Amino acid sequence: MFQRIFKNVQERTPIVHCITSYVTVNDVANIILASGASPIMADDIEEVSDITSICNSLVLNIGTLNSRTIESMVKAGKKSNELIHPVVLDPVGVGASRLRMDTTLRLLREIKLSVIRGNASEIKAILNKTETSSGVDVSLEDSINEDNIDEYMEMGKEISKTNNAVVAITGPIDIVTNGKKTYLIRNGHKNMGRITGTGCMLSGLIGGFIGANPESILESTALAVAAMGLCGELANEKSIGKGLGTGSLRTYLIDYMSNLNEEKLNGGMKIEIK
Amino acid sequence: MFQRIFKNVQERTPIVHCITSYVTVNDVANIILASGASPIMADDIEEVSDITSICNSLVLNIGTLNSRTIESMVKAGKKSNELIHPVVLDPVGVGASRLRMDTTLRLLREIKLSVIRGNASEIKAILNKTETSSGVDVSLEDSINEDNIDEYMEMGKEISKTNNAVVAITGPIDIVTNGKKTYLIRNGHKNMGRITGTGCMLSGLIGGFIGANPESILESTALAVAAMGLCGELANEKSIGKGLGTGSLRTYLIDYMSNLNEEKLNGGMKIEIK
Amino acid sequence: MFQRIFKNVQERTPIVHCITSYVTVNDVANIILASGASPIMADDIEEVSDITSICNSLVLNIGTLNSRTIESMVKAGKKSNELIHPVVLDPVGVGASRLRMDTTLRLLREIKLSVIRGNASEIKAILNKTETSSGVDVSLEDSINEDNIDEYMEMGKEISKTNNAVVAITGPIDIVTNGKKTYLIRNGHKNMGRITGTGCMLSGLIGGFIGANPESILESTALAVAAMGLCGELANEKSIGKGLGTGSLRTYLIDYMSNLNEEKLNGGMKIEIK
Repeated sequence: MFQRIFKNVQERTPIVHCITSYVTVNDVANIILASGASPIMADDIEEVSDITSICNSLVLNIGTLNSRTIESMVKAGKKSNELIHPVVLDPVGVGASRLRMDTTLRLLREIKLSVIRGNASEIKAILNKTETSSGVDVSLEDSINEDNIDEYMEMGKEISKTNNAVVAITGPIDIVTNGKKTYLIRNGHKNMGRITGTGCMLSGLIGGFIGANPESILESTALAVAAMGLCGELANEKSIGKGLGTGSLRTYLIDYMSNLNEEKLNGGMKIEIK
Repeated sequence: MFQRIFKNVQERTPIVHCITSYVTVNDVANIILASGASPIMADDIEEVSDITSICNSLVLNIGTLNSRTIESMVKAGKKSNELIHPVVLDPVGVGASRLRMDTTLRLLREIKLSVIRGNASEIKAILNKTETSSGVDVSLEDSINEDNIDEYMEMGKEISKTNNAVVAITGPIDIVTNGKKTYLIRNGHKNMGRITGTGCMLSGLIGGFIGANPESILESTALAVAAMGLCGELANEKSIGKGLGTGSLRTYLIDYMSNLNEEKLNGGMKIEIK
Repeated sequence: MFQRIFKNVQERTPIVHCITSYVTVNDVANIILASGASPIMADDIEEVSDITSICNSLVLNIGTLNSRTIESMVKAGKKSNELIHPVVLDPVGVGASRLRMDTTLRLLREIKLSVIRGNASEIKAILNKTETSSGVDVSLEDSINEDNIDEYMEMGKEISKTNNAVVAITGPIDIVTNGKKTYLIRNGHKNMGRITGTGCMLSGLIGGFIGANPESILESTALAVAAMGLCGELANEKSIGKGLGTGSLRTYLIDYMSNLNEEKLNGGMKIEIK
């Protein structure tokens, strides 16, 4: 199944409509292109319906939300729902401000989401509906490990069921669940957190994977998470692992994604079904 | 002539005012700097007249247009016209939404443009005044090749005459025409389409070249197209050609532009006059 | 003292709230992360107070200011003042438009700033309260050298005293002064001006350094300036010094920052107290 999903991304070249943070937008576009999909960024309320209509999926990322783009997100989301296009929500830093929390809750309420992807702090904040985080990066105490994995799996399932969406919680171990079936992914490297935007890039990547495979949201999301993690591992080895730094890590991350193929993916991905 | 144009960019260090997409803006700034020109990005309606006044050229790129920046584009364009500064229009994804089409038609109507640069799908959409494209990337069926080159040359000439502007249609073969004289450029590599922003970067580059050479818009545009293509070829060879990927391609593209000199340009550019 | 300051950045992992230019925002985020601090970019007026409250410092950069974000800067600045968080102002291109000058003067008036960082043209423009510059890059005639250093030191001291803030004037020689005590820093390389955003990145970096060391604003600023310059030297040597170009310079600049340690910093920084 994973083989077919990966092939579909490259053969169907899905177009992904992104309303996303201006901090990481260039990397998001480049990693989507590297994976074989095609990105289009458009956030004016006058055009988001047109744009979403020619796309295969929509990614809503609140990383640098503002009053103008929030309305565009809602409009694009509703149009995507109408067209039955899959929609990804990345609630960046949802615990960092009331605006982010209110916007996230509004998007959860008004839009039918296919995938919600966040780090453990963000997912916890959504569950508790309160701001708790200390920024856009995951809190140390929220890091997923073998000891607390069951607890986070339960959280993921709960949010999944409440919102009828696949939930991806990313961290040292990644959890991807639809409430019934859960994948654990053990790819990735902690140095990925030393560059900005690996979360945003992953959400964009998921947009491409599910845009090409709307019938397999859970597995496509799990595969995108594994692909991103694997490329991060390889890029880390080639950069920081060889005495280079985080600038090179970023470059090689996109390099590896652009050179990823079925064989490498099969050989390197560490997906376990729970 | 090309020699003098290239030298002028480096000696006159033109300042280029860009109102441009936030997706690719960093690469646009860096490639303009790499070529020896100096970029300034400014899009607030309260300052665009001031900014344009201290610049040598203006680049309008609708890649992430919004209601606020559209008005700034019009105002900056009119001010540039007043000052007889050359203006470049990059109608990114003009076929993808009504807003992009309307904005492009408005800019064509209200601003005297020096150069219109787009891919084949964008140029076709302008000619037909209808949305047809499937995103910001060129459609496969619109790719310029030896068989359809005459047809695209005619399109370019027609838009050039109608708008009294140089038209650059970029693709596997690039066409640069002022309606009477036409250059064909055979530099570049298809992998350039695998990174975001090569079109935007080229439009920025053209801004620098014509800003330094306002008396030679046609030839400056053709040279900028050739320079970009040549750097893309070299960067591709050094990155994807050696097993690296698109992240490295992007880095090396800017590297080669920053190291370009007359000798390399003369040795590598493939410009044919038609 | 410098040792403790550097260690504090890495141990306290300060969070830096940035309202900053969309041109260079990604590099700003990545260099802040590379230094061990954590960035958050947020510019909507509805959330800047919340965001600033969970941060340790605030960076206001007017590089792509607009009417919406100007108000957010003022609000975030006032909130930071209330919380006694240090605030950095980067008056990018202040001499290039009336809007930039008015905004800078307003921020100087309404916000208690900890650090004002600019190039020589920007600092001169602030002193003279008139637009004079020819863009966002320093004018050739404003370049700091051994002959005019005393003059610029006086300017720095004057602005420092008037605004009760540390002033950092960056260029071939960097000046960091609180009006009484002045540091001269001779790190850096002129090729750093060939990539966009080295000034913005430095302002972000200062944000992290003073966020972790609010009791030592002057020395933290001087150290950040030296660290940036040193990484720039090393990155230049490894890129342009070896036949590569400005794309690689940018990547390696972040690489070196992410690998900087006390030993390298001690061995390479050229700080002189005046």
